Amino acid sequence: MGIFPRFTRLPLKSAFIWSQYSSALAAVGRETSDRALIVSSSQLIQHRCVHSRGFGASPANPGDAPPRLPFSRVTQKDLAFFRTLLAGRTITDPDLLKSSNIDWLKTVQGNSEVLLRPKTTEEVSQILRYCNDRNLAVCPQGGNTGLVGGSVPVFDEIILSTSLMNQVMMFDGISGILTCQAGCVLENLSHYLEEKDFIMPLDLGAKGSCHIGGNVSTNAGGLRLLRYGSLRGTVLGLEVVLADGRVLNCLAALRKDNTGYDLKQLFIGSEGTLGVITAVSILCPRKPKAVNVAFLGCSSFQQLLETFQCCRGMLGEILSAFEFLDASCMKLLEKHLKLTNPITESPFYIVIETAGSNATHDEEKLHNFLEEVMTSSLVTDGTVATEATKIKALWSLRERVTEALTHEGYTYKYDISLPVEKIYDLVQDMRGHLGDMAKNVVGYGHVGDGNLHLNITSPSKDPALLAAIEPYVYEWTSKWKGSISAEHGLGLKKRNYIYYSKSSETVGLMGSIKAMLDPKGILNPYKMLPDKIH
Amino acid sequence: MGIFPRFTRLPLKSAFIWSQYSSALAAVGRETSDRALIVSSSQLIQHRCVHSRGFGASPANPGDAPPRLPFSRVTQKDLAFFRTLLAGRTITDPDLLKSSNIDWLKTVQGNSEVLLRPKTTEEVSQILRYCNDRNLAVCPQGGNTGLVGGSVPVFDEIILSTSLMNQVMMFDGISGILTCQAGCVLENLSHYLEEKDFIMPLDLGAKGSCHIGGNVSTNAGGLRLLRYGSLRGTVLGLEVVLADGRVLNCLAALRKDNTGYDLKQLFIGSEGTLGVITAVSILCPRKPKAVNVAFLGCSSFQQLLETFQCCRGMLGEILSAFEFLDASCMKLLEKHLKLTNPITESPFYIVIETAGSNATHDEEKLHNFLEEVMTSSLVTDGTVATEATKIKALWSLRERVTEALTHEGYTYKYDISLPVEKIYDLVQDMRGHLGDMAKNVVGYGHVGDGNLHLNITSPSKDPALLAAIEPYVYEWTSKWKGSISAEHGLGLKKRNYIYYSKSSETVGLMGSIKAMLDPKGILNPYKMLPDKIH
Repeated sequence: MGIFPRFTRLPLKSAFIWSQYSSALAAVGRETSDRALIVSSSQLIQHRCVHSRGFGASPANPGDAPPRLPFSRVTQKDLAFFRTLLAGRTITDPDLLKSSNIDWLKTVQGNSEVLLRPKTTEEVSQILRYCNDRNLAVCPQGGNTGLVGGSVPVFDEIILSTSLMNQVMMFDGISGILTCQAGCVLENLSHYLEEKDFIMPLDLGAKGSCHIGGNVSTNAGGLRLLRYGSLRGTVLGLEVVLADGRVLNCLAALRKDNTGYDLKQLFIGSEGTLGVITAVSILCPRKPKAVNVAFLGCSSFQQLLETFQCCRGMLGEILSAFEFLDASCMKLLEKHLKLTNPITESPFYIVIETAGSNATHDEEKLHNFLEEVMTSSLVTDGTVATEATKIKALWSLRERVTEALTHEGYTYKYDISLPVEKIYDLVQDMRGHLGDMAKNVVGYGHVGDGNLHLNITSPSKDPALLAAIEPYVYEWTSKWKGSISAEHGLGLKKRNYIYYSKSSETVGLMGSIKAMLDPKGILNPYKMLPDKIH
Repeated sequence: MGIFPRFTRLPLKSAFIWSQYSSALAAVGRETSDRALIVSSSQLIQHRCVHSRGFGASPANPGDAPPRLPFSRVTQKDLAFFRTLLAGRTITDPDLLKSSNIDWLKTVQGNSEVLLRPKTTEEVSQILRYCNDRNLAVCPQGGNTGLVGGSVPVFDEIILSTSLMNQVMMFDGISGILTCQAGCVLENLSHYLEEKDFIMPLDLGAKGSCHIGGNVSTNAGGLRLLRYGSLRGTVLGLEVVLADGRVLNCLAALRKDNTGYDLKQLFIGSEGTLGVITAVSILCPRKPKAVNVAFLGCSSFQQLLETFQCCRGMLGEILSAFEFLDASCMKLLEKHLKLTNPITESPFYIVIETAGSNATHDEEKLHNFLEEVMTSSLVTDGTVATEATKIKALWSLRERVTEALTHEGYTYKYDISLPVEKIYDLVQDMRGHLGDMAKNVVGYGHVGDGNLHLNITSPSKDPALLAAIEPYVYEWTSKWKGSISAEHGLGLKKRNYIYYSKSSETVGLMGSIKAMLDPKGILNPYKMLPDKIH
């Protein structure tokens, strides 16, 4: 990068490599024996205990499991049906079930005794028709990388995994429209598309494990939303199996279609509570010819915001990400993952990515922008990468914060949308509010989307700390008309906090939609909707 | 534009000015006395006649009106209620009601006797609560620029106009999020934003009259979809009044919010059948610093497609529109609107727009692209404009085709999505199929979105011609898994053709949603949903 002589060069270390994180994530998603990343079993949400309180009791904490609902229990006759339908793909071995019963943060554990692995939509349809008739609850599961306990059973729900539904069905190189089964791993789709000179319109840290069906079910945001928009715009079609086994084919591969209500939108972001997504059509952008990543330091959040404004003006259409982490995040990266800070220590760090069709133009725009923010002292130090390995290394400083946090003990995670100028006020306010109670209060996230990841750590699960954080954090967010879950969804853990972001009328209507599409409530029960709908 | 010496310069004529079209449209939307643009009254869909056939009879043509449903009729007592609520804004003068009873194509005419003009959401709520209690049908109306008879009453439905709900409520210059009432005219919003260095994410020919609420209700596509995506991604929040008067506040001004089902999506594109949109939050892009428009000629549609592929690769992120019209369209522009073709006569014409943050870079990219397509003979001739007036002039060649067609007599309009390589096959096939029956068969539209506007003209309304076109055009579209309405919606005219693009299960579910949200069916009856739901 000869055009940026004033910036520190990045010392490249193998520990920076992004793919290592993906592998680690993949392992976490599949093996519960990985002691390095799990917290002690006493910290898990103990659903079996909750269950003993009986139907009708309320959980002690709004994020805990409610009492088990009166679904049927799986019998030998049920198992015989599943084994006939899915020979060799009906898993009942408790050891094999372990990793599907626990979320990757190791904070929520269910007790399912059956894992079903269909390969086709028709099999999913038969499973759901049977379960609906028998009043058996079902937990749909993709890559099991969710952060709010949405992807694991709460009690004994049957786990319906999309992991064997992993076929690309069609790709049109003219329109860039990809159609595939729901269980395709995001990173595999990215590799598939890269060979054809396209990319997926979304990217996130869990890409090595997460499934596209799960991404759509949670309306995943991630790193490219700033540039390519949300899945509500890029998902063009869905195939969904409803609770009673009916197959809803909305799998159009068209950019525009105004024939009736856009039903697929109901299933985007509904966390598997309205139907099981079995296939996805998605609009994929061309692979950019040039990508640059800059890692910059700022001495205040105000300067970071001014840098963002300047960046949007000067980088314009080539800006593909504007992310931040604070100094506390950097300390955790250095301490637990042995990553090296490539620039001078700063209170705030920014990751800026550009993606464009002309390398010379992009470098010139980036150069002009960097000169501007350095000259005006908005940015105190920085480094730039254009080479793939170095880009991955810089990105890992942002992407591996989540992983670094898991080494701190127990992490209380909040995923908040706010007017962008407010996002760091919440972190600072929370630090003051909690004082010595918390081990760490850190902030990072997607500045371009007004999305803060606020994380509070503690050596172990601490009810007193939790009581100090909640509902304080939600009240704060509500006061500024923010969202208490910007991209993670509500799942089990956040379901009862929905009223901080949605009105009673709105939640009431959600309940009506649920009742219409899944009258017995068998699909992913105890998730997303609150225990009580006013 | 010194960098494009080889291109013909555009002879600028006053007739080219876009704003004239906007004014014409505005006039059309408001005055039925404009004889220049209306077809004879015998060509109108005659709902009063249909009504006399009585409840239960089927219309002769699937696009005709069905029998009137058994809603109450407006009484003096009802009028007294409305006059108390909306003093001076309850219109019953038949002359003043004329323009609201007829669509701008002058093909559908209702017979409403009351036009209500609320200013606030609370007034809309009171109107709907009253109408729902009294079983009075309501036709919500924005700028009345729809093309499928969705925005006018079919019989005596009360017209609820958003024209006085025209206030901007908030604009955040950091995030680019605009919040406004539903009756704001799109062009007024564009002017408002331009002063703040932003633009609306959508643009369409009817912008001088259409309301943002109507745009959202019909999920309008338009000219910028290729670049900024659909309203499903850019609309961040809505306020909606339900049929029973309940106000659903989903007016969040956040880029990301995953707290529960995204209910606002139900109202985007539902053509006023599920609720009345009263306010909109929308994400607005920065105003580009440089805009260029190229008008090019191609000798075949295959070459046009190759030009498109080349364009996407070489213009990449600065490409903001790729539109086409055929030679027949150009003849109509010349004949009826006296526009001048600025380049050599060609079978196909392309309008390419670039919008970017660096004029020099954009011109260089465009120059390289034009050199490539001229050298390889994909393009036979072309002209380029960077100056605003000339840009408008070039755009008018694409934008005024709709207007030129109204001078031809009666126009059968089809708005089809297809795989992009198929779109012109339909035009050619239709020409062969209809032979001398049609006066003109023309094609234009949005290549970048795979969206063809197929228009077939005839001196007057011709049942034999219609029988030759339909269902042929829909069967053709269905065979290629296209959409029979890419962006215009279904309204009255296309409602019964929905099954060509949607399955029975899907339409059935739409019916359930309608029944849930509007159990008496008072909102925009006879629109969008078919007469029979299987």
